[in-house]
This record gives sequence, structure tokens and C-alpha cells, in this order.
Amino acid sequence: MGLLSKDIETMDDLFVHQLGDIYYAEKKIVGALPKMISKATSPELRRAFESHLDETRGHVRRVEQVFEMHGAKPSAVKCPAIDGIIEEAEEVAGEVDDKNVLDAALVAAAQAVEHYEMTRYGTLIAWAKALGRDDCAEVLDATLAEEKAADSKLTQIAERGVNQAAA
Amino acid sequence: MGLLSKDIETMDDLFVHQLGDIYYAEKKIVGALPKMISKATSPELRRAFESHLDETRGHVRRVEQVFEMHGAKPSAVKCPAIDGIIEEAEEVAGEVDDKNVLDAALVAAAQAVEHYEMTRYGTLIAWAKALGRDDCAEVLDATLAEEKAADSKLTQIAERGVNQAAA
Repeated sequence: MGLLSKDIETMDDLFVHQLGDIYYAEKKIVGALPKMISKATSPELRRAFESHLDETRGHVRRVEQVFEMHGAKPSAVKCPAIDGIIEEAEEVAGEVDDKNVLDAALVAAAQAVEHYEMTRYGTLIAWAKALGRDDCAEVLDATLAEEKAADSKLTQIAERGVNQAAA
Repeated sequence: MGLLSKDIETMDDLFVHQLGDIYYAEKKIVGALPKMISKATSPELRRAFESHLDETRGHVRRVEQVFEMHGAKPSAVKCPAIDGIIEEAEEVAGEVDDKNVLDAALVAAAQAVEHYEMTRYGTLIAWAKALGRDDCAEVLDATLAEEKAADSKLTQIAERGVNQAAA
């Protein structure tokens, strides 16, 4: 961050900055999911996290692809938002002993992560379109669809058993 | 946070903890919105932020109401997630000089806040129902509906003009 000059001058700069933000976030999530898998008790929840870890590795590669399509070098921008969301998830998980209550807390934490990604990909897709880059929007949209599906799956897991087991 | 004992033992504890988290977040948003209003150039965006500031003050009161309905004293729990989301919004806004690009960045920042609230209220409503507290769920659902409407409004503002003006 420059102290005297503004680093983001155009919509194109803003797009690349936001791409760096989600690149950082996706890589951070790849690091955080194994800890969530190890804490989950419900086999269905554990499988959902494992499957989403595979997907998330693919999301990292798709972000790199969009950087390249846009003629930019993949570069992560530190993202205090995802750092805060994951810090909060780890804090809450550390406070819960009961396995069923912990599963409910893990679902909530994962859904907060999904919603953060959904808003960022939604924005990136809108900006790509405004910049006339429907090709970039299409790649980003494939990830957004997977984030939405992961969020819906977590809602189902919570409503079908995790929340009732905890309550 | 206790070092030797776990502070969250039951689903009820988890519900009250999460209520404290959104209470902290709503109050933090009441503090952040005036800065976003002062930075917005689009009159439509400025009006949307002003109207959401009024709504957000009402959300704070609704959270206090749910604490009371649940027999708990309103108490904020520091929420690193909203701190990170707002820190990131302020960092990005500080990097942008062009007024149109700044409007696009402000919409994105506000939508990240909305999505955080949507996931937290969605979770709280599901947990209230699992705990047999449909009355609390109903109060929380009134706020969730307003958060979703605010997010849709921001998408409209972005797609109708802000993104094109910036691109």
C-alpha cells in the first residue's frame, strides 16, 4: 500500500486487487479445512468438508487461470476479512467441548466462509462483465456455483441432524 | 475465554455466544456506515447507505430484544470476522482515488458486510428453531429479510450504473 500515491486507479486495477484478495482467501481456506475435518464428528459433515477441500484446490487454480487470462501475474493480497472469519471459527471451536455442539459450530463457521466467497465471486463476476470480460466471468461463475452448492449442502446437514443432535 | 475450562457447553450457550457476536457486528456497522456515506458519490448509493443505517439501528434493538426473550443480558462478543471485513473495506477505499471506481469498491464492501450478516442470522434462526424458540426465530427473521433486501438493492445499484460508470 502506497502512503503518498493511490494504488488502485482504474476498475481494472480494482478487479485485479479483488482477484488477489480471493486468491489469498482460497489458499487460506485450503490450510484451514483439514483442521475442520479433524474436528468434525458427523460422518456426513466430515465428508462434505473433505469434498469441499478438493473443490477449493480447484478454485485456487481457477483464480490463477483468471489472473493469466487477464494478463496479470497471480499475486495474493492479504485479506483481513478471511483472516478474521477463520480466527473467529477457531476461537469458537476451541470453546466447545460437546461433540454435537461443536459440529453445529463448525457448520456455522464453514457457512460464514462460503458466504464471504459468494459475495466476492459475485462482485468479481459483475466487474468482469462490466469490463467486457465475459470469458473471465464464466470461469469465476463455475466456482461461485460450487460455493453456493457447498453452502446449501451445509444447510441440509444442519437441518437434517446436526442442529437437533446438538439441541 | 477460559484457558482451562470450555465456556460453551450447550447449544443454548452457543446460541447466546453467536447472538453476542452479531450484537458486536451490528454496533460496529452503525459506526462504519457514516464513513461509507461520506465517501459515496452516487446519490442512489448514498441514499441506500443512509436508509440501511436507520435499519441497522433497528437491528441492534432487535438483537437486544432476542437476548431479553432468551433470558440473557445483552452482551457483545468481539467478532474478528466483522473487524476484518470492515478493516478490508477501509483499506481498499483508502487506495482508490477515482470517484466512480470508489463507488464500485464501496458497493462490494457493503455486500461483504451484508453476506456476513445473512450467514449469521441464517444460523441463529436455525438454532433458535432447533431450541424450540420459534418466537426468537421470528424476530431474527425480520432482520434477515432486511439484510437480503439491502444486498439485492446494492446489486441493482451496481448493475444499473455504478459498475459501468467505473469501467
